[in-house]
Amino acid sequence: MSSQTLHQSRLKLLEAATDVVRAKGYAATTVDDLCAAAGVTKGSFFHHFKSKEEMVLAAVAHWGDWTDGIFATAPYAAAADPRDRVFGYLDFRRDLLDHEVAQFTCLMGTLVQETYATHPEVRAACDRGMSSHVAFLTRDIEAARRLYAPDAAWSAESVGYFVQAVLQGSFIFAKAKQDTAVARGNLAHLRRYLESLLGKEPVQ
Amino acid sequence: MSSQTLHQSRLKLLEAATDVVRAKGYAATTVDDLCAAAGVTKGSFFHHFKSKEEMVLAAVAHWGDWTDGIFATAPYAAAADPRDRVFGYLDFRRDLLDHEVAQFTCLMGTLVQETYATHPEVRAACDRGMSSHVAFLTRDIEAARRLYAPDAAWSAESVGYFVQAVLQGSFIFAKAKQDTAVARGNLAHLRRYLESLLGKEPVQ
Repeated sequence: MSSQTLHQSRLKLLEAATDVVRAKGYAATTVDDLCAAAGVTKGSFFHHFKSKEEMVLAAVAHWGDWTDGIFATAPYAAAADPRDRVFGYLDFRRDLLDHEVAQFTCLMGTLVQETYATHPEVRAACDRGMSSHVAFLTRDIEAARRLYAPDAAWSAESVGYFVQAVLQGSFIFAKAKQDTAVARGNLAHLRRYLESLLGKEPVQ
Repeated sequence: MSSQTLHQSRLKLLEAATDVVRAKGYAATTVDDLCAAAGVTKGSFFHHFKSKEEMVLAAVAHWGDWTDGIFATAPYAAAADPRDRVFGYLDFRRDLLDHEVAQFTCLMGTLVQETYATHPEVRAACDRGMSSHVAFLTRDIEAARRLYAPDAAWSAESVGYFVQAVLQGSFIFAKAKQDTAVARGNLAHLRRYLESLLGKEPVQ
């Protein structure tokens, strides 16, 4: 097998894990499920990974890199004004809700919910990944705070976590209701709150 | 076995399910885990329930009744002013964070995260339970809206869902970080937002 083919089968497994775990959770996902979804053999799986846990840890890292790329290259990220980037992020997250539930929900939020007490390495990897995304968002919120709310008592990081909590909670309601109306309403409330903190964007 | 003893073993199983599922998730919880946590035999389990799923559905209903009672009889619920009850609810949820993670997190939010695509009856039961809690909270928000923000463009129900999403997302961060600081920060932001919608409580 060429190293190119090996690389491809590893990548297929990482992407399959992202989909299957978001649809079924960690414990219910078997190595057979992952191989079937990736279209690879069990031999190939164990060539790349020692266990399901090792594979899911690699999938969390891959997911983190992949989503970093999506947000870094999204059109809103090019806006010159940091407040435009903050509101652009919220609108971008809202527009992602047009996809299927298992496509817009968070691999890490799903994993940590179920594994926090039983799989410490999975918990830690999800914490690192989610905190890294909050740090990415916090940079824009902090830049907007300095421009538009320099005397604010709140920290940009605390707002970054608040935004992520609303998103994670909204995913739970999207799953429960098989519908994104609650998530959209939550993002509208979140936008109104951030406007109260940072001021509204001027109408173009 | 007396009917009293039978009733006791059923109740022990329902309470054990609430604890074990919140700590391990649905798929990783076995009937053996539930029997061990409840201190009952497998024979007793299958006397009461046909399957783990049937048992968890009963646990969701039991949890709903139990939490309804906690919120209905909490001291804040006796406040005459509905806005005091809304802010009292937020402070009560904040104070619950003093307990262990598996004690303050939500059985339904945990279950639905993992089972929404694979166990439709569990998903539906969690949706009913979470929506019923939102409806309970919405009654006070609506009464406060009529008094303090009668011309508001937002609906009380949408605020009820927003509050629950912040709580559910905060539980995910409490699990990821094994710490409640982010959850406390989120509840402070949520309180500030609700003050912007309903006005601040006057200082006593």
